Amino acid sequence: MASASRDPFPNPAAALARIAGLIHRTPIMQSRSLNALTGLNLVFKCEHLQRTGSFKFRGASHAVARLPGDCPGVATHSSGNHGAALAAAAAARGFSADVVMPENSVADKIAAVRAYGGTVHFCAPDQAAREAGLAGLIESGKVAIPPYDHDDIIAGQGTAALEFLAQAPDLDCLLAPIGGGGLLSGTVLAAARISPNVRVVGAEPAGADDAARSLAAGQRVRQHRPETMADGLRALVGQRTFEILAGFSTPVLTVSEDQIIEAMELIWRHLKQVVEPSGAVPLAAALAHREQFRSGDFRARRVGIILSGGNLAIGKLLGTLGAGDAR
Amino acid sequence: MASASRDPFPNPAAALARIAGLIHRTPIMQSRSLNALTGLNLVFKCEHLQRTGSFKFRGASHAVARLPGDCPGVATHSSGNHGAALAAAAAARGFSADVVMPENSVADKIAAVRAYGGTVHFCAPDQAAREAGLAGLIESGKVAIPPYDHDDIIAGQGTAALEFLAQAPDLDCLLAPIGGGGLLSGTVLAAARISPNVRVVGAEPAGADDAARSLAAGQRVRQHRPETMADGLRALVGQRTFEILAGFSTPVLTVSEDQIIEAMELIWRHLKQVVEPSGAVPLAAALAHREQFRSGDFRARRVGIILSGGNLAIGKLLGTLGAGDAR
Repeated sequence: MASASRDPFPNPAAALARIAGLIHRTPIMQSRSLNALTGLNLVFKCEHLQRTGSFKFRGASHAVARLPGDCPGVATHSSGNHGAALAAAAAARGFSADVVMPENSVADKIAAVRAYGGTVHFCAPDQAAREAGLAGLIESGKVAIPPYDHDDIIAGQGTAALEFLAQAPDLDCLLAPIGGGGLLSGTVLAAARISPNVRVVGAEPAGADDAARSLAAGQRVRQHRPETMADGLRALVGQRTFEILAGFSTPVLTVSEDQIIEAMELIWRHLKQVVEPSGAVPLAAALAHREQFRSGDFRARRVGIILSGGNLAIGKLLGTLGAGDAR
Repeated sequence: MASASRDPFPNPAAALARIAGLIHRTPIMQSRSLNALTGLNLVFKCEHLQRTGSFKFRGASHAVARLPGDCPGVATHSSGNHGAALAAAAAARGFSADVVMPENSVADKIAAVRAYGGTVHFCAPDQAAREAGLAGLIESGKVAIPPYDHDDIIAGQGTAALEFLAQAPDLDCLLAPIGGGGLLSGTVLAAARISPNVRVVGAEPAGADDAARSLAAGQRVRQHRPETMADGLRALVGQRTFEILAGFSTPVLTVSEDQIIEAMELIWRHLKQVVEPSGAVPLAAALAHREQFRSGDFRARRVGIILSGGNLAIGKLLGTLGAGDAR
């Protein structure tokens, strides 16, 4: 199992001991209507209710907790949620945070980084520009806290699954979204440690399916032009996260944009929760591939779904209300 | 205090004992950001997470629980949430439910009544047409379960405040929306019974301010042409509910449509919860009248807000997503 990765693996249990006082232990939810609709027994972990609105605060808090007190400030690149999480985690220790963001980032996510005290640096919307922007900040002395491809981040993100498996110990399967792979690889390691019979499955937009293609090819693909509304999942899977996912033979399911919208609508209607498109991708996968869960490879009736984030640009949506519902 | 009403008052504590096994004990929530924004200490009671998506299931369950087993079916008029709640409560006892709905009701609310097994009868969007439609059903033998102006309903709606005051015993004030007045009058009676020092305040759209005008005039106003997106608050305050509110000198604050949208956006952004416009009206009132809470008449720093419902038509909103956030 571990042949493809260097040891030791990141340890979510050690991370949870370090950050338990900093993070929210987020609640879990269920819906009879969604269970009836899917024929599955779904349990949702509400990471959109985590501080800064996504699971990213776990990894960022953990990485920042491990820095020395004289750290000259932290820096990262992020489409938004990691940037906001890092800014908040850094501020809690009195560190500055510089965040390189693609210029097409969601406006609310840019505003959030700034609201938590971070400084935003815009770049072109591709991986090379992100990394070049970050390199400049590192040269100026800042400590890089990458968004996913780092053991402290992976271990921190894995704490969500540790909590989830304690809150819902009878899950057959855990379903998490994959962009860079921090959450999914952390989830794999958490489940392997405390519930080795739980199957961990990734969910990815078909328009950003580099992880599925990389795992099928046995190596990271380089060709990647993401086209998806799930802005949190546009990043390329990392090297370390890929090693972990490949080492554990983690399956990754893909979904269409329409399936993402349908899943958001179901979460809205039945759970009354605001999730961003990325956060709806795992439910979209459970719906689109339900036969695989019910009777196929996974044989998983009780499926845990991580609602990864809730930072949705909303002004535009609400602007349609006055003319719409109230006619 | 009770001079204007007949005794005994509806008793929320007795109602809670009857329906505790049928309803959800909904959670409470807080947000540091919202507290910072308002200068108040806000606690939210999540009745949008109640069964059928609103507090209305409490009153409907209570009224249905008190019917004899050979009931020939129930009937009501409703803009939507009471109808869905009654359909679900009736189905749980094997009774039919007929619901008179204004023809401009929100499409999702019509669908919800049907999904819970109710039969929908459309009428013109005014009080007289609603009542005429219901009268026809009563003539055919159905038992009327009115949406608000009935002691069993009022007592049932008051169970939300009983739970809330047990979950957050240090509240200074409870803020609830008012349409027909079932929730607000039940809240008044619940607080009077167990926490007489808690101030209960109503919140109403300026475009449907019949309760505020009625209480100012000392009698129910008849002129009422509601114009508000808060479809759950368009009904005229009831006779029994008015007597209770007047008897307890309950203040009612009004808010504009823009303030309702702003409150929905804040709940979305900071609590990540989907509430319908009616459910956002109390937060809108806390924001619009914050000085009255902070230093004025209410002297209330710790304010409990009932998020009354979450049944929002959403397909239209999500349809804007693809073209919007993902550019």
